Amino acid sequence: MDMENYMQEVGLRAKQASRFMARASSMQKDHALRLISAAILRERKAIRDANRQDLQSAQATGLASALLDRLSLSDQAIDTMAEGLLQIAALADPVGEISDLKYRPSGIQVGQMRVPLGVIGIIYEARPNVTVDAAGLCIKSGNATILRGGSEAIHCNQVLAKLVQEGLVGAGLPSDAVQVIETTDRAAVGKLITMSGYVDVIVPRGGKGLIQRLMDEATVPMIKHLDGICHVYIDDQADPAKAVDIAFNAKCHRYGTCNTMETLLVARAAAGHILPLLAPLYAGKKVELRGDEEALAILDGYPLLTRATAQDWSTEYLDAILSVRIVADVDEAITHINQYSSQHTDTIVTENYTRALRFMREVDSASVMVNASTRFADGFEFGLGAEIGISTDKLHARGPVGLQGLTSVKYVVFGHGEIRH
Amino acid sequence: MDMENYMQEVGLRAKQASRFMARASSMQKDHALRLISAAILRERKAIRDANRQDLQSAQATGLASALLDRLSLSDQAIDTMAEGLLQIAALADPVGEISDLKYRPSGIQVGQMRVPLGVIGIIYEARPNVTVDAAGLCIKSGNATILRGGSEAIHCNQVLAKLVQEGLVGAGLPSDAVQVIETTDRAAVGKLITMSGYVDVIVPRGGKGLIQRLMDEATVPMIKHLDGICHVYIDDQADPAKAVDIAFNAKCHRYGTCNTMETLLVARAAAGHILPLLAPLYAGKKVELRGDEEALAILDGYPLLTRATAQDWSTEYLDAILSVRIVADVDEAITHINQYSSQHTDTIVTENYTRALRFMREVDSASVMVNASTRFADGFEFGLGAEIGISTDKLHARGPVGLQGLTSVKYVVFGHGEIRH
Repeated sequence: MDMENYMQEVGLRAKQASRFMARASSMQKDHALRLISAAILRERKAIRDANRQDLQSAQATGLASALLDRLSLSDQAIDTMAEGLLQIAALADPVGEISDLKYRPSGIQVGQMRVPLGVIGIIYEARPNVTVDAAGLCIKSGNATILRGGSEAIHCNQVLAKLVQEGLVGAGLPSDAVQVIETTDRAAVGKLITMSGYVDVIVPRGGKGLIQRLMDEATVPMIKHLDGICHVYIDDQADPAKAVDIAFNAKCHRYGTCNTMETLLVARAAAGHILPLLAPLYAGKKVELRGDEEALAILDGYPLLTRATAQDWSTEYLDAILSVRIVADVDEAITHINQYSSQHTDTIVTENYTRALRFMREVDSASVMVNASTRFADGFEFGLGAEIGISTDKLHARGPVGLQGLTSVKYVVFGHGEIRH
Repeated sequence: MDMENYMQEVGLRAKQASRFMARASSMQKDHALRLISAAILRERKAIRDANRQDLQSAQATGLASALLDRLSLSDQAIDTMAEGLLQIAALADPVGEISDLKYRPSGIQVGQMRVPLGVIGIIYEARPNVTVDAAGLCIKSGNATILRGGSEAIHCNQVLAKLVQEGLVGAGLPSDAVQVIETTDRAAVGKLITMSGYVDVIVPRGGKGLIQRLMDEATVPMIKHLDGICHVYIDDQADPAKAVDIAFNAKCHRYGTCNTMETLLVARAAAGHILPLLAPLYAGKKVELRGDEEALAILDGYPLLTRATAQDWSTEYLDAILSVRIVADVDEAITHINQYSSQHTDTIVTENYTRALRFMREVDSASVMVNASTRFADGFEFGLGAEIGISTDKLHARGPVGLQGLTSVKYVVFGHGEIRH
C-alpha cells in the first residue's frame, strides 16, 4: 500500500474511533489507562529489548550522544511511564462537564459543555516515553490520536503501541483510538499535517527546526511553541536573597529546557549589589555572561565575560550562556520583554505590590510569574497532572497544555419548546 | 504611499495601540463606549448623508437589491448601534479576571488570567453597523482592531470610524486602537490576512465565497464559520406541539441566516403524524420540500415537493427550501448530523431523557439544543451581550463569539521566592 493511501486509511480509522472515544465513559477510559500501565510493567523486558535494538541502529548510524540519551529508556523511565498513566487515570474527566448553565429571558437554559477536539496528531522526536504520555492524555480527554515518533524509536514505539491498543480493547474501546504510524517515510508527516478532513489539531514536540518546518507546511491548526526565550527581571525593590536564588535556579537548574532563563534584566539601582552576588554562583557553573555596556562595567573581572550584540536578546542558547541587560525600571523591563520574549515564561522579582501586578498584567507571555523561577512553567508543577506540550500561541491554549487544552467547549441549550420571536 | 507600506503602517500602529488597550482600565474603556454612543446619536445626520452617498454609488454600479438592503442604515439601525455600545459598556470587563488560583505543593500559587488577544482584523461586507459593533467589542475586550468593510460602505464607515476614534481619544485611549482601512484596494485584504507579525486573529464576516477565499490565503489564524447546515431531529418521543413549533420556526423565522434549519430529520415512528401537521404550515409559506423516498410517500400531494438528491444533505439553501429525511432513531439522526452538519447548530425534539442527553453529548456541533429552535444560536440570545461572529472551528471558540472569544487566558504564578528542585 502506498504512503498516501496508508495515511488516508489511518486518518479515516482515527476519525471513526474519535466518535467512539467522545462518548466513552470515564470508567472505560480509566480502565484502559490502568490496563496499559500494568502491561508496561509486565512487558518491561520486551520494551527494553526493542529499545536496545533502536539504540544499536542509532549508534550504527552515528546519532549524536544527546539524542541517544533521549532515545534510551531506563528501568526508571519505564516505571515513570506506568506511574504517569495511573496519575492521568486519577485526574477528573474533563469531558461532558457543563459550566455556566443559565436561564435566558426567552426561557432557554444555555451552558457550555467541555468536549474532545476529535483527532489529534502528535509529531515528536526520539523520546519513546512521549508515545505513552501522549496516548494517555488523548485517551483520558476522549480524543483519538495519531502518533508519529522519531524513526530512531520505531521498534520501541511499536511495542508500546501494541500494549496501548491491547489496553484499549481490554476496556471495550476501539484500538484505532491510538495509532502509531508504522512507516518511517518522511512524507507521512507532510500528509498528516495537511489531512484537515481527518485531523483536528497537530501537536508538534521537538526542536525549533522541526517546528519551523511544520509551520511552513501545515494546514491543520497546531498547538505549539517555537522558542523559549525566558526572562527574569530583578527590580530595585527585589529581596536580594530571592533575586539571587531565582536568577541562579532559572538559568542553572537545567540548560536545555524551554523554560530556562536566557536573558537577565536588572534594574539600574539594584545591579551594583545584585550582580556581584550572582557572579560567583554563575562562575561556579562556568556560565558565560554576555552583558550590555553597563553590565560589563559591573561584572568587570568575571572569567567568561563578553559583550552582548543585538542578536543576543533574541537568542535561545539552551546552554550555559546568559545575556544580561541593565534597565531603568519595570517599564523598560516590560518593554524589553514584550519586544524580545518568545512569550513563553517571564518572571519579575520584586517586593513592590504595584510593580508586581503591573508586570503580571502587562507582560504578554503564556506564563507570567512574580518571585518564582521560570523553571516552574510545566504541566506537573502547574497541577495539570501531565502536559502534552507548551503553547506560545495566543488562541485556544497558552502555556502548559494538559487535558483541558485537548478539549474545547460547545454551547448546549436545554429548552422546553421555545421558538424565537 | 503604496498599499504595502500603508498596511504595514496600519499594522504597526495597531500593535502599539494594543499594548495600551491591554492595560486600559475598565472605566476608560466604558467611557469611550459611551462617548461613541452619544456621538452616533448626535451625528445622525452626517451618518445618514454618508450612507446615502454610498447607496447612490452602489445603485449606480448596479448592486443587487439584497446588498443595497444590507448597506442601508435606517434611523432605527442608528439607534440600535448606539444602544448596542451602551449594552457592551454595561457588560463585565473580561480582562484581568483571574480564575482557579490554587496553591501547589511547591508553594507557588498558580491561576489563569484572562487577557486580550492583541490585534484583531475584521473583514466584512456591506453592513456599516458591523463597524460600530466590532469596534465596541474590541474596545471592551482590550484589543486593537483593524476594520476592513465592504468598499460599498466606505463613506459611511469613515464617518463612523472618525466618531469611534474621537471617543477613544476623549477617554484617553489611543485613536489607533480602532483603524478603518481607507483604501478599497482588494490587495489590502490579502496583506491583512498574512501580516502575522502584527495581526493575532482574523474574524471574517460574510458569504461563503469570501470566507473560502480567505481560508485559502490566510496565514493569520481565523475565527470563522463557512456554512450553516443546521438540523432539527424530531424523535418518536417528541411532544408533537413542540416539534411542529420548533420545526416551523427553525425554517421560517428567517431564511437567510446561518442558524436556519436546512434539513429536517424525523423518526420513522413519528413521521406519519408529524409531517402532515407541518405540511400546511410550510405550504402557507411556500416552502419547497425535498424529501427522501419515505418522506415523499408521506407528503404525497404537497404542492412544492421534489425528490432530494445526495447533494441536498450538504446544501445550505438560505432560502424557502427544506430537505426532509426519515431516520430510524436517534442513532441514525446523530450519524447523519455528524456526517452532513456544518457543525453549526443542531436540535433534537424529544421528551426522552436518555436520548436528549445522548444527542447533546454526541452531536459534534458548536451549539447543540434540546427542544429549542436552532434560531436561538446567537450571541444576544445566549447572553453574551453581543457577538462578533459565529465559529464552527474546534479550537479556541465554538459557536457565537462574544467578549470571551476575543480574549485568551495566560498562566499567572504568585511566588514567594520559590525555586525548582
